[in-house]
Amino acid sequence: MKGNSTILVTGGAGYVGSHTVVELLKNNYSVIAIDNMVNCYAKANDKPEALKRVEQITGETVTFYNVDIRDRDALDRIFKAHKIDSVIHFAALKAVGESVKVPLMYYQNNIGGSGTLFEVMSKNGVKKLVFSSSATVYGTPQFLPITEEHPTGQGCTNPYGKTKYFVEEILKDLCTSDPEWKVILLRYFNPVGAHESGLIGEDPSGIPNNLMPYIAQVAVGRRDKLHVFGNDYPTHDGTGVRDYIHITDLAIGHLKALEKMMQPTFSSWTAYNLGTGRGYSVLDVLKAFEKASGKPIQYELEGRREGDIAECYADASLARTELNWTATRDIFLMCQDTWNWQQKNPKGFQSP
Amino acid sequence: MKGNSTILVTGGAGYVGSHTVVELLKNNYSVIAIDNMVNCYAKANDKPEALKRVEQITGETVTFYNVDIRDRDALDRIFKAHKIDSVIHFAALKAVGESVKVPLMYYQNNIGGSGTLFEVMSKNGVKKLVFSSSATVYGTPQFLPITEEHPTGQGCTNPYGKTKYFVEEILKDLCTSDPEWKVILLRYFNPVGAHESGLIGEDPSGIPNNLMPYIAQVAVGRRDKLHVFGNDYPTHDGTGVRDYIHITDLAIGHLKALEKMMQPTFSSWTAYNLGTGRGYSVLDVLKAFEKASGKPIQYELEGRREGDIAECYADASLARTELNWTATRDIFLMCQDTWNWQQKNPKGFQSP
Repeated sequence: MKGNSTILVTGGAGYVGSHTVVELLKNNYSVIAIDNMVNCYAKANDKPEALKRVEQITGETVTFYNVDIRDRDALDRIFKAHKIDSVIHFAALKAVGESVKVPLMYYQNNIGGSGTLFEVMSKNGVKKLVFSSSATVYGTPQFLPITEEHPTGQGCTNPYGKTKYFVEEILKDLCTSDPEWKVILLRYFNPVGAHESGLIGEDPSGIPNNLMPYIAQVAVGRRDKLHVFGNDYPTHDGTGVRDYIHITDLAIGHLKALEKMMQPTFSSWTAYNLGTGRGYSVLDVLKAFEKASGKPIQYELEGRREGDIAECYADASLARTELNWTATRDIFLMCQDTWNWQQKNPKGFQSP
Repeated sequence: MKGNSTILVTGGAGYVGSHTVVELLKNNYSVIAIDNMVNCYAKANDKPEALKRVEQITGETVTFYNVDIRDRDALDRIFKAHKIDSVIHFAALKAVGESVKVPLMYYQNNIGGSGTLFEVMSKNGVKKLVFSSSATVYGTPQFLPITEEHPTGQGCTNPYGKTKYFVEEILKDLCTSDPEWKVILLRYFNPVGAHESGLIGEDPSGIPNNLMPYIAQVAVGRRDKLHVFGNDYPTHDGTGVRDYIHITDLAIGHLKALEKMMQPTFSSWTAYNLGTGRGYSVLDVLKAFEKASGKPIQYELEGRREGDIAECYADASLARTELNWTATRDIFLMCQDTWNWQQKNPKGFQSP
């Protein structure tokens, strides 16, 4: 029996989920992880490999259920079987391009599934939730750095982004309707990196959508070269600038959010940006990765991609003052830990 | 066998639904009506009273299923049992105040239910839909009259309004993902009145939320007096101005939308305002109702209600030019038909 309370983590076998479970276990929380396993590798009849690795890192056992959040009855059984204090809700489909092709699947999974989870929570008297949101809810930045006061929902151009925005709105309305609910919305900027052990990390299926795993696959020889889309943006080197955040810093942000919700003065909902507050360009990241890995990264300049913006980075001061959280891991460590994970697991969790 | 195609009408026993079914049957469409009957009166083991009255008006039989749109299997059976050409989708919870109190119920019913309907339609190759939307998607008007170009989703302050906005967005994304989909979003202003027969009309449960049924209940003696919220708005008499539209005009708008979707040149989605384009104040409506009914309407002036706006009325020219539709029934007829329905059915559909 752990000293701290029990946290249900939906999507616990995913990239952010698994790293957060590590930090929860290290901090003496009990964890119930659920995942529908559509996006994770497992050996036959076993729990997801990511969670096996979490157990290896922490020396703890993770209680796991292969459950989809749309399955009301299965969720209800879990809430009845365990004394759950709070929920950290990661479970969602997350590929932007796919969401444009099959929007209904995204809406039904991400919004419908979240609604079912919140209903089951409410029914079982569990009304504390940390929601895995995204800076995508801000759309095209109207000002920089982006504060939590920035308008949301305008210019979310893809279904994935809209599902994050809609679920935020549902949670706000839920808090208005019932003062017992306590909700923290964590708006992630660009999570990268891997656990320092190299045992868990990002394991994209197919061609990576994001910069860092793509660079890592070029470095390890799985891809020929990086495509850099646009070098005529009004940034210091012309390539797009983003706010990258180390996955371990991000995971720790969730623990800080849990602690915040436990304060008796906390009520209703608050949104926090999780970013470093500092932007790096595509070429900055590429150079940092070359340095961390000692490998040259081939790249080719191409035209701008439709819908891309020049710059996006967080004002992360609210999380600093209210959550006592700040990102401490720099871009070099982000690259180093990505490279460590990639080298040890060239084929992700399927690597022997 | 009717000459025209078969239309599935969800929420077919409701206020707008039942009036639309009348117009569909008059125009030689076959109708399959479904309704979960949470908001309609029926005698034991019978179809909803509203649809019995529709049959009385038209001399036709309405095929009816007591089905909830969240019930995927039941929906699928209906699509398999009938050769459905298009869907007119009314089914939704619609009480603004209730939506603030139980938001999850609204989100699960209105968004989740719509998503399930669209999935079943897609699976069965039925990809033409008229959606019952609302001027509420425009939020607080940024300019008047409101055109379809007015921003949506900003300042939708209640969950009911957000569900209309979110379903619009889902449908737009669906059309982007699959060019076979054809969708018309009809944004209603303030539907009032009743069928000229006095056999069907609005039958609110409990205290009416809307002006016209409230006035009618005062006139018929069910309520003491009307409460007028605010007489210091910048309007011609200080009371709030809205764009009222006769329910029969609104119903005919749905037929025009079906015809539009059948044109081979129509693709993707279009939104149309359904309103008269003319605003009437609370006191204008009250006076028109007094004239139509011959009854004095007691009223009391009170302070403004939070969230109310001074004026809202449509630019209805797009529906005129593209749908060949225009509202022809004036405010006096709206009151007259409301009064006729109210007198004949002082207790709505439960009246003997």
